[in-house]
Amino acid sequence: MTTVDNGVNVQALLEAREVLKGAPEAAQFTWRANSKWENGVHSTTSVQKFFGLGQEQAHKSEAVFSADHPEVFAAADQGITPIEYLLVGLAGCLTAGVASVAQNRGIQLRSVEATVEGNHDIRGILGADSDVRNGFNDVKVIFNIDADATKEEIEALVAQSQKRSAVFDALTNPTDVTVEVR
Amino acid sequence: MTTVDNGVNVQALLEAREVLKGAPEAAQFTWRANSKWENGVHSTTSVQKFFGLGQEQAHKSEAVFSADHPEVFAAADQGITPIEYLLVGLAGCLTAGVASVAQNRGIQLRSVEATVEGNHDIRGILGADSDVRNGFNDVKVIFNIDADATKEEIEALVAQSQKRSAVFDALTNPTDVTVEVR
Repeated sequence: MTTVDNGVNVQALLEAREVLKGAPEAAQFTWRANSKWENGVHSTTSVQKFFGLGQEQAHKSEAVFSADHPEVFAAADQGITPIEYLLVGLAGCLTAGVASVAQNRGIQLRSVEATVEGNHDIRGILGADSDVRNGFNDVKVIFNIDADATKEEIEALVAQSQKRSAVFDALTNPTDVTVEVR
Repeated sequence: MTTVDNGVNVQALLEAREVLKGAPEAAQFTWRANSKWENGVHSTTSVQKFFGLGQEQAHKSEAVFSADHPEVFAAADQGITPIEYLLVGLAGCLTAGVASVAQNRGIQLRSVEATVEGNHDIRGILGADSDVRNGFNDVKVIFNIDADATKEEIEALVAQSQKRSAVFDALTNPTDVTVEVR
């Protein structure tokens, strides 16, 4: 008898997997963000509505995020830099995966912490060297996990989370991004 | 005589470009995020410190972000989903680029709004179909820009922003991401 409770409703996810196998159109989600330029390189972006399961959906509340550049880039630092949002997404995605996989495997988690670091040669975005890419050179994630499990079981949790992570895939593999002006 | 003011200190950026051409080590930045699992698939991630210009740096204040899954995924919806943070970063990065390039070209902006949409077949992350990728199928950005410029000049601003965007590059090209357990 297991009393493992990481707060993840794995049963609902396993059922959704079975249902969506036979209803691929319901599995088509569209996530949305709406941004507004404030001043300088400062912008605010709001997120609430999305589409999925065949209809319009919404988060319980609207979330608003500020992006800016730091003072060392001669900007006002009214928010984190846009590229740091990628690290926030990566940390959240891999952590959600660890909790879900742990629940599915009957492993009780006590704490999960991660440090994410993105190395970035800013000569690319400044146009100082055309051989330097604009994005991260590389990204490193380090997990510290306390759980009722062996080191090997914890490493397997993290490996499985990585294998099913939406954000890990989005960063490690190319995605087609089209940009239009209306 | 130009009175264009988009709030971007382009002179400082052009000077930084020249300085960093001769000091590539100062151009090596490391952006960081620290995450903590809360419960279920809900986590919080904080961002403040980073490294650059050869030393430790910090944003003026610490920013904390919640990530969760929505109620349609049987979760508590305590924050936006991790993958939505990628759209926030993309919107912020392209908008910052538009403002910077406009300043450099002497174009006064009045408003810049963008809608970003990421299409996502969730059968990948659910493990319902191994041929479906985990990340976005594709992403579309639509800009609405009001500026003292022709349609062609505005389109050229957006094209140049895209060409120098850190986040656009990070999403459209692969990055090496390593994940470790301590």
